[in-house]
Amino acid sequence: MDGATGMQFPTRQIAAWIGAVEAEPLSPRAQKCARHALLDWAGVTIAAADDPLVDRLVKIAIEDDETGNAGLAGRDERLTPTFAALANGAASHALDYDDINTRMRGHPTVAIVPALLAISNTHNPCVGDLLDALAAGVEVACVVGEMMGHTHYNNGFHNTGTIGTIAAAAGAARLMRLSPDRTETALGLAATQAAGLKAMFGSMAKPLHAGKAAMNGLLSARWARSGVTATNGVLECDQGFGQVLSGGFSPKTIRGEPGAPFGIEQNIFKFHAACYYVHSALEAASDLAREHGFKPDDVEAIEVGLMPELHKVCDILEPRTGLEVKFSIRHMVALRLFGRETGDPSIYTDDVAIERDLVALRSRIQVVPEDFDSRTTTRVSVTHSGNQTHARSLDVGVPADDLDRQEERLVAKFNALTEPRLGRERAQNLRQAMLSSPENAPASTLTDHLFGSEHMPDLREFWVLG
Amino acid sequence: MDGATGMQFPTRQIAAWIGAVEAEPLSPRAQKCARHALLDWAGVTIAAADDPLVDRLVKIAIEDDETGNAGLAGRDERLTPTFAALANGAASHALDYDDINTRMRGHPTVAIVPALLAISNTHNPCVGDLLDALAAGVEVACVVGEMMGHTHYNNGFHNTGTIGTIAAAAGAARLMRLSPDRTETALGLAATQAAGLKAMFGSMAKPLHAGKAAMNGLLSARWARSGVTATNGVLECDQGFGQVLSGGFSPKTIRGEPGAPFGIEQNIFKFHAACYYVHSALEAASDLAREHGFKPDDVEAIEVGLMPELHKVCDILEPRTGLEVKFSIRHMVALRLFGRETGDPSIYTDDVAIERDLVALRSRIQVVPEDFDSRTTTRVSVTHSGNQTHARSLDVGVPADDLDRQEERLVAKFNALTEPRLGRERAQNLRQAMLSSPENAPASTLTDHLFGSEHMPDLREFWVLG
Repeated sequence: MDGATGMQFPTRQIAAWIGAVEAEPLSPRAQKCARHALLDWAGVTIAAADDPLVDRLVKIAIEDDETGNAGLAGRDERLTPTFAALANGAASHALDYDDINTRMRGHPTVAIVPALLAISNTHNPCVGDLLDALAAGVEVACVVGEMMGHTHYNNGFHNTGTIGTIAAAAGAARLMRLSPDRTETALGLAATQAAGLKAMFGSMAKPLHAGKAAMNGLLSARWARSGVTATNGVLECDQGFGQVLSGGFSPKTIRGEPGAPFGIEQNIFKFHAACYYVHSALEAASDLAREHGFKPDDVEAIEVGLMPELHKVCDILEPRTGLEVKFSIRHMVALRLFGRETGDPSIYTDDVAIERDLVALRSRIQVVPEDFDSRTTTRVSVTHSGNQTHARSLDVGVPADDLDRQEERLVAKFNALTEPRLGRERAQNLRQAMLSSPENAPASTLTDHLFGSEHMPDLREFWVLG
Repeated sequence: MDGATGMQFPTRQIAAWIGAVEAEPLSPRAQKCARHALLDWAGVTIAAADDPLVDRLVKIAIEDDETGNAGLAGRDERLTPTFAALANGAASHALDYDDINTRMRGHPTVAIVPALLAISNTHNPCVGDLLDALAAGVEVACVVGEMMGHTHYNNGFHNTGTIGTIAAAAGAARLMRLSPDRTETALGLAATQAAGLKAMFGSMAKPLHAGKAAMNGLLSARWARSGVTATNGVLECDQGFGQVLSGGFSPKTIRGEPGAPFGIEQNIFKFHAACYYVHSALEAASDLAREHGFKPDDVEAIEVGLMPELHKVCDILEPRTGLEVKFSIRHMVALRLFGRETGDPSIYTDDVAIERDLVALRSRIQVVPEDFDSRTTTRVSVTHSGNQTHARSLDVGVPADDLDRQEERLVAKFNALTEPRLGRERAQNLRQAMLSSPENAPASTLTDHLFGSEHMPDLREFWVLG
């Protein structure tokens, strides 16, 4: 540390913190949460390994000579580190089923982990290094998210793409053990590449943002390491990331309260395979249905109170595709009340968007603007069975207290997502490696189960001979 | 065309225009201007082939298995198309000596040409196709620049990075002959990746923006071609590129006035190797010195009137590096009055930033905010030799009328930039190919002289065998 404080020089202070690898080891609780994030990442990524977006990205990468030694979760091909980060990042966000962090206001793990895995071949980290770098990236995502405030997201930026790029660079810089100076440069290069429009929600470009964040964050750290330069103080400087991309930027200190929980402890996992901002409504609606015993046909009207700025995010009025359904809160509530397994990604087909019963129930649901203390709070008010009305406000956006219970739910989700693709034995080996391999074991303990077995030959020797 | 008008659906109309390859062939004058842009691009790129940024990008690309068949201007290595576009784009903007377009408010050619060259291996275009795709990309850069208005640039975005990405996608889509639908998707993917902060001016990240624009524009077209989806209407839609990245967006029609000059005819070339916004001051100062016969020692004070929003761009008060000198209007005027060859990129060393005589003259120069009709207008007022004052306002930002005279100056610049690296014969062959090869000649007529001769073997057959 060089005495810089976050309030004066937030970029410098973040870079100094990232570089001080030994200064503040992860608490056992934070480390457990990092393993949970890694496990959940692997599950949602493997489940999307055959997603049409991923297929296209991999096919084009191979056509463009982007084959290399970096592995893809649940696939056999190997690509260059850059394009493996892209494809793994896009895959992990393709189902929109990955973890979120409300301080970042986005999805941290999908941007960070693919960048770390892409350099694990060349940097030979141990499991503990991976967990530490993941937690460092999430910590940076949280503090930058807080600095950018509501304005950045409300203005139309997709934090997973923008702040995710900076978080990925932070994680990669930590894993590569860059100096604080080079780390500050990596943050600068990341911030000036950071992009992603919320207008893309409902198209393949949304998960692509996560892939680009991983890819660009990785490149930022690689380039900074080699001596590419950037302006210092990118977060706070004149015409910097904060000023240009948010009207409400205010500097913050990373780890400003010693002993406070790490950001990684505040990751929240999804147990419905849809936009996070519909989750509270789904839980509230199913709670009410269970408690008051009404069926879809009994429903006369439902009013959903949702924060005004979220209507653009998840209130697609007439979804036409399975992807759009995930951002259609009215359609999602209808699905849930019909008892559909909203945790199963395979139900989100284009057909489900136009199913007559669902559309009929959806037409009786109205979404109204309503202010709450938290963006993840939603109110559901159901009028049913001859003018009975019951309401519930609920907030799923609160990190779990009970990590054992969290692990149990995550393992169930992981098994459901991975066994169909990997088979039970490989899924189990991967799960055990993620949750229990010792900190000092090589990272290959994990990646051997994660990536396909078809190692590409190292063709570089041909160059020398040819 | 499908009847969409630019005022209602500007993205759709641009995509339809790009797809209508045969609808409006380039005028002979526009084609000549496209050849000028290509020639000037080759000159400034070859001169920067050994730039430290380019060396680093190429070295890391090779370390990361990004070798392929796409060539680098003035270098022998071959990279994948993606990374060749990156390295060529960064090289071409490294000297900040490339062409600009005031409608785009940025540098169009450095974003577009590297994307086109990267696909010339696989798409086998003829020379005419390259010129046409370059002109199409510039046309899109111009209309999008006009839609985004002053606000986008003044807010802190670097148009070469942001709008350049969209222009590169447009050029690549034209060269690949994508359908209007796929082209609209390519524009969407480009806009959601578009980034670049003006805060990076004076660091290597500025030329990197041009490389990233070329790379991301190319990827956008490649991905759109393979079926990756994006939201339509990205320029004008809610939370789209226009709304999120400019407070002053207003829709425009591409080629709204049939018969009007093409954007490519409005490219303006630089004959000083520094930030474009200092050029008018340099021309005005040297005109005044020649006409009134004063020497640096005679100068008592100089006042430079510069548009207020440009002070952040090119008024670095105390430059410490050769790169910063190019963005220090006071230092540049001092250089010019001392008769230094500001057209020679090699004079911009770190030593020149602290030369005593230059610093002394610089200290007598003051920059004041002043409004003009055009951003490229500057007023220089010199008080010298016992309180004589002479002033001149000048605007270099006006496209040349006399294309023969322009070609003559461009050839002199090209020769000076390329002969030291290529030798006289290869430089001459390249120049002749750029200026005179027939439209229907294969693009390799140009690239054979542009790229190094060390063709990498095509290793893809090894994959099949291996």
